[in-house]
Amino acid sequence: MTLSKGDEPIPKFGRAYRKDFSLESSYIPVNHGSFGTFPHVVKEQLRKYQDECELQPDRWYRYEKELHLKRNLDCISRLIHCDAKDLAFVQNSSQAANTVLRSYPFKKGDKIICLQTAYVNVEKTLLYIRDKYGVQLLPIELNYPLEDEEVVQKIREVIEAEHAKIGEPKIIMGVIDAICSAPGVRLPFESIASLLKQHNILSLIDGAHVLGQIEIDIEALDPDFFFTNCHKWLYTPRGCTILYVAKRNQGYIHPTTINFAYEHHKDGAITSTFNLELSPPTIDCSNYLCVETALKYRESIGGEEKIRQYTHDIAVKGGQLVAEMLGTRVMENSTKTLTASMVNVELPHFETSKIQNGQVAPYIIKKLVYEHNMTALIYENNGKYWIRLSGQIYVDLNDFKAVGEALLSIIQELNK
Amino acid sequence: MTLSKGDEPIPKFGRAYRKDFSLESSYIPVNHGSFGTFPHVVKEQLRKYQDECELQPDRWYRYEKELHLKRNLDCISRLIHCDAKDLAFVQNSSQAANTVLRSYPFKKGDKIICLQTAYVNVEKTLLYIRDKYGVQLLPIELNYPLEDEEVVQKIREVIEAEHAKIGEPKIIMGVIDAICSAPGVRLPFESIASLLKQHNILSLIDGAHVLGQIEIDIEALDPDFFFTNCHKWLYTPRGCTILYVAKRNQGYIHPTTINFAYEHHKDGAITSTFNLELSPPTIDCSNYLCVETALKYRESIGGEEKIRQYTHDIAVKGGQLVAEMLGTRVMENSTKTLTASMVNVELPHFETSKIQNGQVAPYIIKKLVYEHNMTALIYENNGKYWIRLSGQIYVDLNDFKAVGEALLSIIQELNK
Repeated sequence: MTLSKGDEPIPKFGRAYRKDFSLESSYIPVNHGSFGTFPHVVKEQLRKYQDECELQPDRWYRYEKELHLKRNLDCISRLIHCDAKDLAFVQNSSQAANTVLRSYPFKKGDKIICLQTAYVNVEKTLLYIRDKYGVQLLPIELNYPLEDEEVVQKIREVIEAEHAKIGEPKIIMGVIDAICSAPGVRLPFESIASLLKQHNILSLIDGAHVLGQIEIDIEALDPDFFFTNCHKWLYTPRGCTILYVAKRNQGYIHPTTINFAYEHHKDGAITSTFNLELSPPTIDCSNYLCVETALKYRESIGGEEKIRQYTHDIAVKGGQLVAEMLGTRVMENSTKTLTASMVNVELPHFETSKIQNGQVAPYIIKKLVYEHNMTALIYENNGKYWIRLSGQIYVDLNDFKAVGEALLSIIQELNK
Repeated sequence: MTLSKGDEPIPKFGRAYRKDFSLESSYIPVNHGSFGTFPHVVKEQLRKYQDECELQPDRWYRYEKELHLKRNLDCISRLIHCDAKDLAFVQNSSQAANTVLRSYPFKKGDKIICLQTAYVNVEKTLLYIRDKYGVQLLPIELNYPLEDEEVVQKIREVIEAEHAKIGEPKIIMGVIDAICSAPGVRLPFESIASLLKQHNILSLIDGAHVLGQIEIDIEALDPDFFFTNCHKWLYTPRGCTILYVAKRNQGYIHPTTINFAYEHHKDGAITSTFNLELSPPTIDCSNYLCVETALKYRESIGGEEKIRQYTHDIAVKGGQLVAEMLGTRVMENSTKTLTASMVNVELPHFETSKIQNGQVAPYIIKKLVYEHNMTALIYENNGKYWIRLSGQIYVDLNDFKAVGEALLSIIQELNK
């Protein structure tokens, strides 16, 4: 990788960038959205912190790591425009969702809006709090592709219908995605957050795929709760996720593992223990300390905007290419808002009777991994099978072409 | 470090072993009990797995890590004598306690026995479930040193007094330590577990300090819930903790972060989802995979028993030396059961009026770290200050002597 400094031209992204990462050179890495990966410079920094810690673990855990944590939270706060005091590191998006959903003081009967496209762990956490606390879930079906206004309208209809009911509990929270996982589409989350706010409904925004993929301005969005992975699109090691909690709710939120700083607060606006309660426990938290290095690397190769431009552009072009090869279509709407840096392509009709019910997607994924040295998410949506492909700085059209060829070969085999 | 193979004599443990670990050579490492540390061979294995993962993160997370996880759980199951299917990896002891306490289906009013010596995070978790679910806590004061029978008797008295009350809910769970953190003493947990069982009270045993420090036989002990760190006395990287749940309770237990496999069970004996629900989430779980290597290392230097003998012996002798230097006493009882591989020494009386209330222990600890290049836990117990010191294969009497000198110097300064 050639660092671009000063007036040097930004190098064209693509396969050449793969050497900055640890990926096997023969691997076709079109599934960054699932587990992400991180460049060598980040790995070096990670190990530097880990080595430093083991020189004297007490000194590190008791005194030294705090300054590093603070500096890294500051980096994020500048990137997403909010007070660093409203942020905490957690390990992954599921933990962020659990932090909020399991500690928020729901009462029996409270209603929560959620989307059918919610990430499975978030969906199951909602079922857990339904079973444990007796909240009522109002799932909203979203059969993609959809226009942005259709999505907002479906949610508006549910709110209006529920709030028209006399003597029933109101909707207390809406759990929505910024970018869903399957299908990998961008939602009009700004409009939805604003709709929720108009109706005094708390917003919990799953932004797992946001950081590094699309711009976000927390101050402008003003969500109640928001979380986003750093270990996917921002290139930190796994797991490293940011949880934002608005000051008005911090008193209600306790970590998934209660620590020394726990205090019960009757008022959500009591912020006194939030930062201590949400401070990292005794684990190796060096992952959290790599935000700064990941951002520096991103800056060195052109910066956030250039990266976003490329990963979006290659997703759009790559998706189009695969759809053409398969004779199908990309999942898009009339205003082209669905594709950020993940693109979804419909699979052509194929024979599935040989494979056990529910095993079609895992079957194809395993074939992709072990026979074609690539991975991509395969999922059912609206009665059809789709593939989700990720743009990234280290992929180019040749990678998407290889995916198209692999899929044609697998489908031909299935149809035999 | 000289590996002892075949008939070669086991080398004498002590300072020479420090070169197997990453600790700063000038550091006096008498506080293994707080954060532990791990040998170079474990670090190498850890990084080998991490490197393997990044070659193709999808392949690793979807398929490969499972086999490694299973093999490492098998190692633990052989060590502690139980079915590997009843074990799960979690990140630390606090997370293990939260897994059980936050998901167990307590009803309002349920009573829980707990010990005043509980680790702070466990204590706060108990307060959390009191505040959240309305359980009642019955804390038992333990002012050490105590005879084993005194401890058992105190718990027996509380149970009998509570269960004599007519029309009141019975005690449902007892949360007890195997080895406390502060003071660092071994409890008669086998007798307590047996007492709880006689009264149909569930046992949750905090064995954070057990693995690698004392022998444990889960089959014989038959606790309801038990957890133990591997990242302290067993030499795996932080955090790596084992949670054991008896089959009769597995249906009730869900992880602190709910995942794809969640199912609500009305019967504790339904074991069908336990292993999947408790499988590690999307984090770097290479720490969990280092159990095997840590055990191999321990075997190569003499094995579990030899290690336990030395770490106990040096703790006893080292504690005695420090007590002599300070003119105080070691915390022990008449049957010498309190000291496993951590020893507690009373500090002589000193002037504390210069230091803010509650800041005496942190003040001394910071001085130890930054002025004497060592750490040890300082805590109040029964109206006096005590220091907890850890035996370990890499310390010898010179280290304890250095601690005694440092304490004399700090106390002299305070008394000036």
